[in-house]
Amino acid sequence: AIIVYRLPWTWKCSKLLMKFIHAGLNTIAVILAIVSMVAVFEYHNARSIPNMYSLHSWIGLTAVILYSLQLFLGFAVFLLPFAPVPLRAALMPIHVYSGLLIFITVIASALMGITEKLIFSLNNPAYSASPPEAIFVNCLGLLIVIFGALILWMASRPHWKRPPEENVKVQRPNGGASEGVEAESTMTDCSNADRSDAGFNSEAARKRNLKLDEAGQRSTM
Amino acid sequence: AIIVYRLPWTWKCSKLLMKFIHAGLNTIAVILAIVSMVAVFEYHNARSIPNMYSLHSWIGLTAVILYSLQLFLGFAVFLLPFAPVPLRAALMPIHVYSGLLIFITVIASALMGITEKLIFSLNNPAYSASPPEAIFVNCLGLLIVIFGALILWMASRPHWKRPPEENVKVQRPNGGASEGVEAESTMTDCSNADRSDAGFNSEAARKRNLKLDEAGQRSTM
Repeated sequence: AIIVYRLPWTWKCSKLLMKFIHAGLNTIAVILAIVSMVAVFEYHNARSIPNMYSLHSWIGLTAVILYSLQLFLGFAVFLLPFAPVPLRAALMPIHVYSGLLIFITVIASALMGITEKLIFSLNNPAYSASPPEAIFVNCLGLLIVIFGALILWMASRPHWKRPPEENVKVQRPNGGASEGVEAESTMTDCSNADRSDAGFNSEAARKRNLKLDEAGQRSTM
Repeated sequence: AIIVYRLPWTWKCSKLLMKFIHAGLNTIAVILAIVSMVAVFEYHNARSIPNMYSLHSWIGLTAVILYSLQLFLGFAVFLLPFAPVPLRAALMPIHVYSGLLIFITVIASALMGITEKLIFSLNNPAYSASPPEAIFVNCLGLLIVIFGALILWMASRPHWKRPPEENVKVQRPNGGASEGVEAESTMTDCSNADRSDAGFNSEAARKRNLKLDEAGQRSTM
């Protein structure tokens, strides 16, 4: 969901469709996270294991709550067409930062969960004897870290950002060339004009893009 | 060390001094990290605990090795005056990204270490009974996460970036207004011209700054 806005094939979609993909994937993830929370509590209760005692559980639950809040606020502010543009512009850098922070926190929480599970579950031989399961799950943990690093790389490259939508709007012959900031475009429908003709205008569009950047509207951590 | 370039009081320093502060703090941190590594191995050997079996140790050692490499490369490329400007410009975004990634990885590793230590050390009552020590150390873990989040916020705000050095160079009456990119300025000494007069020129400087941004020279994750 994080890198939807970084994938060239989605640049051909309308802004609204991209937002729906972004929101949809995050909604699925939040639902799965809540289901897994319920599963954990049920499992603990069935086995008479105390709930919420570990740092893993504290950070994990905090992350899931913040994630739900992020989804709710994102839906209310950026997907519904009611929020005024200045509010969207002010909240966008915070939305981007929180999203990445929650992503990082979830990875840290997963690593702590893996550590806990290995210590609790491996008894004969113990975790410290490095049985094959331990090596295997450690490698899984490393892969999670590498996955997180790749996503952060993709999300933070300036030139991987979606080109600005104004690019398309400005060259319309019917003069609908409003300089509306990007945040406004929830209401626009599929404005997939012929992008291949946009070259001549790219310099101006890039400058506008940079201006928006400076205003923090397209800020990415 | 990460936020040296984000602190307004350092903006008054020369670029070289800022680099020295940045490099110096990181050198101290690497030395402390290596000392702590040695302490861990000595402790394990003294207590006959196997080394390097846990995910915490894998990720932690990887982070320390990458950190040392980062310091060495940063020293060779950005502090010594031999590296050509295009190389510096190409490596800067990678340097910034790796630095932040190593920072995040170290925090994740610390959280896993805390989790391990609590599980191993708390026996009567156990970690799962939430004794005061467990609550206390969990809170410490949360504080580490909050600390990390604050640093990432400071490092990723575009308007917290140091204003470009050209700002100062351009307005010199003696015409030393080279458009040299920032990466070149290792050799410049304390060029602390009167910044308070720089206002009239700030618009042009900001545009140059944005251009540099685009070239990835001042890219920050």
